[in-house]
Amino acid sequence: MDYKKIIAIRENWPKKGISFKDITPLLANAKAFKEANELMAKPFKNKKITKILCADARGFLFGSVVAHLLNAGVVVSRKPGKLPYVGVSVSYDLEYGSNTLEIAPKMIKKNDRVLIVDDLLATGGSAKAMTKMVKKIGAKLVGYSFLIELTDLKARKILEPVEIHSLVKYKI
Amino acid sequence: MDYKKIIAIRENWPKKGISFKDITPLLANAKAFKEANELMAKPFKNKKITKILCADARGFLFGSVVAHLLNAGVVVSRKPGKLPYVGVSVSYDLEYGSNTLEIAPKMIKKNDRVLIVDDLLATGGSAKAMTKMVKKIGAKLVGYSFLIELTDLKARKILEPVEIHSLVKYKI
Repeated sequence: MDYKKIIAIRENWPKKGISFKDITPLLANAKAFKEANELMAKPFKNKKITKILCADARGFLFGSVVAHLLNAGVVVSRKPGKLPYVGVSVSYDLEYGSNTLEIAPKMIKKNDRVLIVDDLLATGGSAKAMTKMVKKIGAKLVGYSFLIELTDLKARKILEPVEIHSLVKYKI
Repeated sequence: MDYKKIIAIRENWPKKGISFKDITPLLANAKAFKEANELMAKPFKNKKITKILCADARGFLFGSVVAHLLNAGVVVSRKPGKLPYVGVSVSYDLEYGSNTLEIAPKMIKKNDRVLIVDDLLATGGSAKAMTKMVKKIGAKLVGYSFLIELTDLKARKILEPVEIHSLVKYKI
């Protein structure tokens, strides 16, 4: 399936210079959504994944279906103030300011085999923050599965040598 | 499965008087998460659902898997500022202040058969807002599927006579 024909682009949104990848048409297309999730799960079918770690909020849409397909649990990493109890909290820098992601206590255990799932790999900030969470806990990070990768930003370099898959590649 | 043994309760969070239902342990439990989604989808298996409408952000976790199970597309209703283009926007009152939910243009069409999915039916504010969206567009609202229903708040009354299912019932 040619996902680039389904994903819409909005230039200069949410700010000048950003070429925003709008996945709402892909989500609403039943066949494309199902196939995208199946392809995102496929490379990890025999990797004994026990937990999917995904980020608030678009990451939830793919993380939950990939979890269903791999018979894994879902661990949500959320923005501050959303979880009643916080286990691990990691902050990361953005171009201006910083973001924080939090997960609830005991959701990932040392013997878990974790797959990080997100809709987009851009500069890698949130992927790196989730990587830190897994490492802090001491669980095994098996890989990353992204719907979209912006290859010119070279975030792949900071995540390797762990296995990385992405379904749709744009330069920027 | 006894979901009440898996869902955690935090009293007086996020404010005094609220008995918060913490679903993070259910999400992280692969068997419980899979079964809950299957049971949420089941009543609508033969109802020819074409679109799942779900709310930012916890609603995404169940809406996406239910969409996968029913071979439907997912339409995300989001907080303001998250979508590059807005098709329908609905505001609703909260105890203090108000909230707005938005969906992208053309994601739901007149001939769609829509199922609204959310993690929680409390006062019914967001369910009612999503109902208004479907009605504004003129599509067919087939039903609602919730993980949790707080029965004492009687939100069911404002959503009927459309078919409503909920998996776990608490009084408040």
